[in-house]
Formats: sequence, structure tokens, C-alpha cells
Amino acid sequence: LHLLFRLSDEVSLWPLPQQFQTSPVAFKLSASRFKIVHAPGSTAGPSCSLLQNAFRRPSSRVFVVLGLETFSQLVYEDDYGVNNINKTSILDYPRFSHRGILLDTSRHYLPLKVILANLEVMAMNKFNVFHWHIVDDSSFPFLSRTFPNLSQQGAYHPYTHVYTPVDVKSVIEFARMRGIRVIAEFDTPGHTQSWGKGQTDLLTPCYSGSSPSGTFGPVNPILNSTYDFMTSFFKEISSVFADAYIHLGGDEVDFSCWKSNPDIQKFMEQQGFGQDYSKLESYYIQRLLDIVSSTKKGYMVWQEVFDNEVKLKGDTQIHVWKMNPQYQDEMARVTAAGFHTLLSSPWYLNRISYGQDWQDIYRVDPQSFNGTPEQKKLVIGGEACLWGEYVDATNLTPRLWPRASAVAERLWSDENVKDIGSAYSRLEKHRCHMVRYARNLRAID
Amino acid sequence: LHLLFRLSDEVSLWPLPQQFQTSPVAFKLSASRFKIVHAPGSTAGPSCSLLQNAFRRPSSRVFVVLGLETFSQLVYEDDYGVNNINKTSILDYPRFSHRGILLDTSRHYLPLKVILANLEVMAMNKFNVFHWHIVDDSSFPFLSRTFPNLSQQGAYHPYTHVYTPVDVKSVIEFARMRGIRVIAEFDTPGHTQSWGKGQTDLLTPCYSGSSPSGTFGPVNPILNSTYDFMTSFFKEISSVFADAYIHLGGDEVDFSCWKSNPDIQKFMEQQGFGQDYSKLESYYIQRLLDIVSSTKKGYMVWQEVFDNEVKLKGDTQIHVWKMNPQYQDEMARVTAAGFHTLLSSPWYLNRISYGQDWQDIYRVDPQSFNGTPEQKKLVIGGEACLWGEYVDATNLTPRLWPRASAVAERLWSDENVKDIGSAYSRLEKHRCHMVRYARNLRAID
Repeated sequence: LHLLFRLSDEVSLWPLPQQFQTSPVAFKLSASRFKIVHAPGSTAGPSCSLLQNAFRRPSSRVFVVLGLETFSQLVYEDDYGVNNINKTSILDYPRFSHRGILLDTSRHYLPLKVILANLEVMAMNKFNVFHWHIVDDSSFPFLSRTFPNLSQQGAYHPYTHVYTPVDVKSVIEFARMRGIRVIAEFDTPGHTQSWGKGQTDLLTPCYSGSSPSGTFGPVNPILNSTYDFMTSFFKEISSVFADAYIHLGGDEVDFSCWKSNPDIQKFMEQQGFGQDYSKLESYYIQRLLDIVSSTKKGYMVWQEVFDNEVKLKGDTQIHVWKMNPQYQDEMARVTAAGFHTLLSSPWYLNRISYGQDWQDIYRVDPQSFNGTPEQKKLVIGGEACLWGEYVDATNLTPRLWPRASAVAERLWSDENVKDIGSAYSRLEKHRCHMVRYARNLRAID
Repeated sequence: LHLLFRLSDEVSLWPLPQQFQTSPVAFKLSASRFKIVHAPGSTAGPSCSLLQNAFRRPSSRVFVVLGLETFSQLVYEDDYGVNNINKTSILDYPRFSHRGILLDTSRHYLPLKVILANLEVMAMNKFNVFHWHIVDDSSFPFLSRTFPNLSQQGAYHPYTHVYTPVDVKSVIEFARMRGIRVIAEFDTPGHTQSWGKGQTDLLTPCYSGSSPSGTFGPVNPILNSTYDFMTSFFKEISSVFADAYIHLGGDEVDFSCWKSNPDIQKFMEQQGFGQDYSKLESYYIQRLLDIVSSTKKGYMVWQEVFDNEVKLKGDTQIHVWKMNPQYQDEMARVTAAGFHTLLSSPWYLNRISYGQDWQDIYRVDPQSFNGTPEQKKLVIGGEACLWGEYVDATNLTPRLWPRASAVAERLWSDENVKDIGSAYSRLEKHRCHMVRYARNLRAID
């Protein structure tokens, strides 16, 4: 059932609800004479503190919490400055359960307020996952209580460019109040140059001929100390980040350093891996997954881990990110193997081009691949990624928004909601809505 | 003579001066014990109020005025927070006299503070021309005292989205204090849809068959009232904008509406123009130029005016903007005809792509075309253009900077300054310098 009525010009819904019906009958809103209550049949009762808080919070945008975002978008000012809402009934739910934004705080450090402001805008777009790609080769801004030397040595600056335990807590709580999960990514064994600065013997020494060259490669997979470290480290991570899932990375492992190292070569021989270094990678990942499993967390991994045939728990989520080979084929393979998957390949929003590239972003459908209905059901959603090579606090917002809103609607609304013209006119209004709100945010800063 | 010494790591010069020599001898700066004086042989004496003001103004960046910008860039904080400057001697002058930025305030309105902030950053890059593309098809935000109806009807909003006489004055004075000229562009006969809203009979009525279609085309070139209007209008403009030059546009005139109009057809016949509508365009431009000449202003025009063989005063500056046919050939043709010219074709910075496209911007040389030394001397410089289709206050700064800095160095420094590696490391520091300064600007906002 799809009842699509024309909304008054003043309001615009984004992402479009699954079903809604509106009428020209307008009610005026006043803070003193207005309240929100649970429907008689609602499964969320007064015990849900998140909703109770949202019901009580008065503001110019009225409510900024998931579920109430649509209500907020329906409110418009009349010529007398009074808030109005037209009689509207809405039945709504998301098409996909995983609707994420990845921010990269390693290549450029992002100040806490940038992350929080972004969570606000995410909520306005009904995103529910903040994928925090918190560390990488470039820097290690996560302040670990167990291994404080990691950020002390690996951050761009040990005091100003770190996320303290209090910072991390405030991000998680701020997100939670807006219905957003925080999934942290600690990517290994590649992308770990910054880890090596504060943790001796963690990375593989590369060789030039018969002697160490002084440079380092991926995590050293042949030392027991590596696994001891990972055990302690992920024990801390699993308690700091409350979400049921951790993202373990596993992408883009460069084998050249491993190949150069005589100890690694010997280990390869002992294990019977021949010259197949993806087997060594799998060996490492396998042991890491066992360590993380013991913390009772589920895990997400980038697609290479699946491609390399690492043995994975049934609840593992495979994150598809490559454009070549075709991501549709990868989605088909992953789901054919029975794994849950989410899509990012066409949604690398750090990549820019001139003009309205939101349309290409919008046209993507994560379930558009050759597969059975059962396979399609294994697609849990997707993430817009904003990698940090050319992104920092000075340009993050205009590079990400409103383009990420196109991903938001694709992941929330019905699969038949794909008319570019309708999307354009709603997105234009939605953007104004976001800009106005962001201006209010700055004003109370 | 080019003396290139390695500067201390803390400082970086951008754009690179013509000649400079620095040494490890450092002096500490203190506001009370420091002053700037004219050199004995300086042609600028104490009567130059601009320099006198700059000499007196104390600030954390010390001085932000053209000529002193380099001095400011040489200052660095030592470990004790004291401002230092190394003993340095500099001989400097710009390669080109016209170093501009075009901002478009019609397609999206830009708040005054965005324009002023941009002028600050322009000064940090030794830009000396703000080309204010103030009106266009989309909107007419210039509040004319003579024709207030133009902005009343043609602006996006008659009160919030206009530049009042006071606004315009403050932009000009703010720019002047930073050594920046403000050249206003009032583009006709095309790009004038917004003019028609507040000025009846100014635009050509388009016809559908034998009756008016209700839409309008370029300025109507066959009515005397058009030239009466332009006379009054440009009389005001020539007094509001103090600069010796006005930019008259003249680009992209669409002939289809003129072709549809029976009165225009009749006029074409009377004048013996046949079917050559570029002759009608030239007729209009010729009369407009005569009007503007009578205000004692010089004029700049987009390249089409030259291409269409309009008769031009000898001091006319031809603005080259098209990429096809090759802009190098156009520069050759324009200078062969003896006209001054400036380049924008490869510097449309609203166009974006992923990665370090500043390098392509940097590699351009405005004098790189086939021509005699005399022709090369007719190149007065260039402008980085930021057209407003996809630019407003939310994304202007990161879209324009630091990429426009690449244009700044090309237009200021010696033609042999073109090493990408050196530019990269200096530009990286210069960007930090700008970001830090912009942050200070916001803090005092």
C-alpha cells in the first residue's frame, strides 16, 4: 500500500517514509498544549528512556531523535511564525537495518565537535551506524588505557590529537541518544604503520637482502607476542565500545615485506604454505577472530577476508568495498556462501566530481545482483565512506552532505522510491532544513 | 639573480618572492621594540596612508597587507612562544599585475562576511583583484539606488539577499585596505533573466509562432529605452565602484529568442544584418561600450566580444575563459590584435575532481602560447573563477582554498618557479598558515 499525497510546499520528507497520508487540515503547535504519547498497541512502553527523553525535549526543531525525525520534518512555520503541522498519518520502518557513515580519523584527525555535529546530521537522515575508522597507517589517535604508548607515539600529537576515554564515551552516548550505534574499526594486519611506533615487535621487520632495512610491514603474524598483545588490546576495545560488533578490517595486506623477511619465509615453510602469502594472512586473521570471538563480540570484516577463504563465524558481516571486480558479483558470492553483507563500493563519498553526482549515488541498489530471494535477505544495508586522505575539519561537512543523504534514502525507503525528479525537489528542501539546523547548532555553540 | 636558501622549517613563503636571501641569525620580535620604516630610496613616502596604517597595526599575524604579507610569513614562534624572524633580505615584485579571484553572488547569494573573509585570504596570497560577478540570470542582489526595483524583484529575497550601498562600500574599503581592487561585472546582453523582473521592456519577448510565449530572452537591443536605461544604470555603477575598470560581460548570448521575435527580425532587415545575429549582438555591445566610455571607465569583456569583432577601445582587456577552441590560440589571437588579455580558462575552480588537482592548476602558464615577446607583454595576468552553481557559504572556502593559492603563485612568482615538489612542501605549510589564521578570524567573530 502506497498512499502518496502532495505535501504542502513548506515541508519535505527525507528519507521518504514507507507509507504516509497527509491532508490540508493544519494544527498549530504550542509547547504548552502539546504532547507525544505511545500508541495503545506500541511495543515500546514508558520504560524506553530514549523515547521518553525525546518526547519531553522541546526545541525549535522539536525533536531530533530517530522515529521522531519525520515528525520534525513535517513542522513548518506559517506567515505568523507559528509552528504548524498538517494532519498526517505515517507508518514507517527502514528497508535495511544497517545504515552507516564511515569517518576516518587517522589520515586527518577530526576534532570531537566535528564528530558530534556529524552525528546530529546523521540522525536527521535516519542513519543508525557510525563506523569509526579510528586508526590506520597515518596515526593512532585512540588513547588505550592498556597500551597508552600507542597514541603517545602514534598520534599526530599525544595530547591534542587523541581521543581520550572520556571523548570516546561521549561520542558513544551522544550517538546512542540519537539511535546511532558506534562500531569501531581496528584494522589489522595491514594499515598498521602507526601501531608500530608505540609497540615494539608488533610489526614485521622488512629486509633488504640479508639485513633489516629499518622499515616495517604488516603485523608480524609469526610471534606469540603478537597474539598476546591482540588479546589484551581487544579485551579493552570490547569493553570500551559497547556495540555487539567490532570491525576488524583485514583489507589491502601488502605481502612484499613478509616475503623479504627470512623468519617469515621459514615459518611459511614449516606451515606448508608454499609461496601463498594469503594463507599466512588467513592464518593471522583466523587467530585474531578466535581472540575477538572470546570477547563475545560479533565481527565485521572487509571483503578480502572472505575472498581469502578465512573460516568465519556464521554471524560475520562481510563489508564489500572494491569496485573491481564488480561489486554486484561479490555481493552474489558472499550471500551465496550464506553470509550477511553490506555495501560501500559505490559510496566512497570522499571521491568527488563536478556536478550532481548524488544521482549516481542515489541510483545504486544494494540488492541489485543476481541471486535468490534468500540471498537478497542477507544484505543488511550499506555505508557511505568518507576516507580522510583529503578530508579534515575544514571540508568534511560540504564533502559529505547532502550527498550522503542520497545513501540515507536508498537504505531507508522502499525500493520503488527511485524517481530522481521527486528526490531532487525533496532533497533540495532537506538540504535547507539541514543548513538551517546546522546554523542553529553553531549559534548555540 | 636567484638566491634560494633553505628556510627554517617553521616558515614557508607563498607565493615565492622574486629574490630573497635568509640566514640562521634570528631576531626576537616584541611589539614595543619593533617598527617598520620606509627604505631611504622608497618611492612610497609617509603620504601613503595604506602603508602607514599597515606599519602601525599590531596583531598576532602582525601585518596582513600586501607587501607585508611576506614579512608576516617569515615570523615563527619558538619553543617559548616568542615571535622570531630570521635575518632575511627580500626583493620582490609581481610577475603579473592582474591577479584575481572571481566570486559569483548571483547563482547563490554569499553573505557579506563570506566575501570579507575571502578578501582576507586573498591578501594572504597576494591576490589584488576581486572580480565581483554580482548579478546574473539567477538573481540580482545589487541594490541600485537608481533602479531599486531590480533587486526588489530580482533578488532571492529583497531584504536579506541583497548588497546595500553600505555593504558594497564596506567590501570596497575592506579590499582597498588589503591592496585589492574590486572590479564589478554587470554582464549583458545575455545572463540577464533576473534584470527583467524589476525592469519592464528591458528583455526581448520571445515568440512562439506569431504570439509572445511569455518568456524572455537577452536584453532587447532594438529599443531606445534600453540604452536610456543602460546610460542611467552605468552612470550609477561607475560612481559606486571606484575602480578604473568595469567588467561588461558579453558572453554566451543565445540567439534563439531574438530569432523568434518579429520586431527583431524587422530590425535585422533594416540594418542589413541578414541572418547574422552576432552582428546584432555587436550592435548592442558597441552602443553599450560607447555609453560606458562616456563614464571615463575602462572595460573588460569576455572573449566573445573580441571574437565577434566588436570595435574596441585600445585599453580594453579581453578575458579568455573558453577551453575550446584551445585557450592558447585565443591568447595568441587577442594579443596579435594588440589587446591586453587575462586568462581564466584552466582556472575554473568550481570544477572539482578527486585528488591533487592543484598540480594541473599550478602547471598552467598564461604566457605559454605562440607569440612574439611583444604579444607576451600584453598578458596582464589571470583570474581563478568560482562560479556559483554548486557553491554557497557552506562550501566556498574549502572549494576555493588552497587550490586558488596555486594560481596565486603562478601569477606572482618568477616563471621559473615551477617545481612541484618544492611547491607541495611550501603549499602544505601555507595551508596550515591559512587555516590557523582563519581560526583566529572566527575566534574574534
